[in-house]
Amino acid sequence: MSMPGPVTAQQMHFAEPLPLRSGAALRDYTLLYETYGTLNAARSNAVLVCHALNASHHVAGAYADQPKNVGWWDNLIGPGKPLDTDRFFVLCVNNPGSCFGSTGPMHVNPDTGRPYGSDFPVVTVEDWVDAQARVLDRLGIAQLAAVVGGSLGGMQALGWTLQYPERVRHALVIASAPNLSAQNIAFNEVARRAIVTDPEFHGGHFYAHGVVPKRGLTVARMIGHITYLSDDSMEAKFGRTLRSAELSYSTQDIEFQIESYLRYQGDKFSEYFDANTYLLITRALDYFDPARDFGGNLSAALARAQAKFLVVSFTTDWRFSPLRSREIVKALLDNRRDVSYAEIDAPHGHDAFLLDDARYHGVVRSYFDNIHADTTGELHA
Amino acid sequence: MSMPGPVTAQQMHFAEPLPLRSGAALRDYTLLYETYGTLNAARSNAVLVCHALNASHHVAGAYADQPKNVGWWDNLIGPGKPLDTDRFFVLCVNNPGSCFGSTGPMHVNPDTGRPYGSDFPVVTVEDWVDAQARVLDRLGIAQLAAVVGGSLGGMQALGWTLQYPERVRHALVIASAPNLSAQNIAFNEVARRAIVTDPEFHGGHFYAHGVVPKRGLTVARMIGHITYLSDDSMEAKFGRTLRSAELSYSTQDIEFQIESYLRYQGDKFSEYFDANTYLLITRALDYFDPARDFGGNLSAALARAQAKFLVVSFTTDWRFSPLRSREIVKALLDNRRDVSYAEIDAPHGHDAFLLDDARYHGVVRSYFDNIHADTTGELHA
Repeated sequence: MSMPGPVTAQQMHFAEPLPLRSGAALRDYTLLYETYGTLNAARSNAVLVCHALNASHHVAGAYADQPKNVGWWDNLIGPGKPLDTDRFFVLCVNNPGSCFGSTGPMHVNPDTGRPYGSDFPVVTVEDWVDAQARVLDRLGIAQLAAVVGGSLGGMQALGWTLQYPERVRHALVIASAPNLSAQNIAFNEVARRAIVTDPEFHGGHFYAHGVVPKRGLTVARMIGHITYLSDDSMEAKFGRTLRSAELSYSTQDIEFQIESYLRYQGDKFSEYFDANTYLLITRALDYFDPARDFGGNLSAALARAQAKFLVVSFTTDWRFSPLRSREIVKALLDNRRDVSYAEIDAPHGHDAFLLDDARYHGVVRSYFDNIHADTTGELHA
Repeated sequence: MSMPGPVTAQQMHFAEPLPLRSGAALRDYTLLYETYGTLNAARSNAVLVCHALNASHHVAGAYADQPKNVGWWDNLIGPGKPLDTDRFFVLCVNNPGSCFGSTGPMHVNPDTGRPYGSDFPVVTVEDWVDAQARVLDRLGIAQLAAVVGGSLGGMQALGWTLQYPERVRHALVIASAPNLSAQNIAFNEVARRAIVTDPEFHGGHFYAHGVVPKRGLTVARMIGHITYLSDDSMEAKFGRTLRSAELSYSTQDIEFQIESYLRYQGDKFSEYFDANTYLLITRALDYFDPARDFGGNLSAALARAQAKFLVVSFTTDWRFSPLRSREIVKALLDNRRDVSYAEIDAPHGHDAFLLDDARYHGVVRSYFDNIHADTTGELHA
């Protein structure tokens, strides 16, 4: 096992416009990405990680000057870890529209000379997959050993197998869904309304006013956070524990620990996340629906996929419940695709996909071990 | 069966202060209430209905001058209905702190001469039960044939059996819980933050500014509304149905029907509901916890109850799930109380308690038929 060295974010500039599903195009854009491990001579050991709502390209390791800024999936990815960077060349691209470095709403719109703000074009999961494919093109990676993602990242992994079926050998779709339910969309919509109706949103051009719609973002994050945790884990962690021994009988003071926790999560998020990015990313979630063009028939939609699949869900995830993962599995089986499915009995709700759970990580490790065996000749070429 | 005549709201003024659990008191207050049916000579056929979050004392029938303004539980209560006003004298009191006529935050605080606003004292379920008991005292009703409530109303019904055990023969606790879970409190807290951080809340004294925190109230109601419906019923009713045939690719325009529905519900609510009342009522929900004084032991807490109980839950209610009703049933059984329990297989989530479901209404009807038989002598005296 090699020692993990410090990691560095890299960037690629694209002068050629990226056509988007909306009909608009993103022109003159930059994408940030990180890589871990070494691309082999056959260029056959690349694994693309797709990030979810509030994550970035910084998936694993730490920056030399920020040793505590550890990648968001560092428990899964690294030397000797389930996705082993001693064997695989892992990369993650920060999606356009993000607020973590790739071209996004806070950057200057070349058409107007001022920040895009709410004029940033609506981007979809399919657009992100296209953008990632261009990065792979530049790196000379014709085919991925695997594409991996959780939640919204899992939608991108699934999208890869449909948009570029010949470029993906394996897809790991974790804690995800073939589309959002009405309830999922409803939670996204409330979050968006909280942001958009904050007077400091200024129609999405708040940058010019030197403010951010902090109140709206805080509420949006609090709503989101409730849906990431299971009812049971919230109960186990907080229950009805009071902040003080005595009730204060106030509608605005913090009385219960769960209130303190949620306010903290909301405040923290509102200090680093961009409001326009939040709108864009929740909308990309809403729109993803590969079955739409097939009259709602997911089996027909997935017929294009050629990859082998690992689908993973978590029993207490009520945001993207196991039922939704099973829809993907069934549609793949209808097409006689090679699919493994693991339903992990974990208490943590949707957030489980980010946590270090032995059974979950064991499944992912075994799956990558088999990919390794598949490609040993190439990997050691 | 008698014809239902028009109903009239009545009011009672109380000059004697109502001591509250917070240590404060409500002085010089007025309570609105409605009654249906006739109190018998023995005064033994009174049934008190307790209202929930966004409801009022207008439970059944219609006002002479507003024939379309039908009471919120009119499908359950009236001549020949499951709670039959030909046999029972039904009454409902609008709780203090409400925005439907009883003394609340928009009324003048006698201590300051201006509207209470956020200075209205925090009221609890126990305080409401005390207020209702004073109305019964004035009406000369020593004992209730039954107390009935759904959701927060069910908490009041349960509270009655603990605060005034000798005054309640039967309690119907419907779609309720012995306390809020951490997740329930979390949703309430997000709703409150949305209201309180709306600049037009003005610290709760918005009346003086001629504005209301409409944006915050709208978001609060949208959040609440999601929790009232089941995931399945939302899916069945809205699914991913688009408003137009073509996607508009916008983060702010309405794209899905569920968004349109939620925005409408939020807007409508924000036009008639008071923001301070919303804070007070969600807080009363948070605080209710009869087991608190018994080290969390619900069985010990319910030992005081003498009433017979009907507990009803709905399978798809994830706000107050059947598990929570079963906790009440178990605690009553631990005390060898007489309790019937019905878990109704209904698709509509928490809202099911307000809907006309044949099995649910059948259970309530049978239960009241038995109460009738219990008290035939008195009822016909």
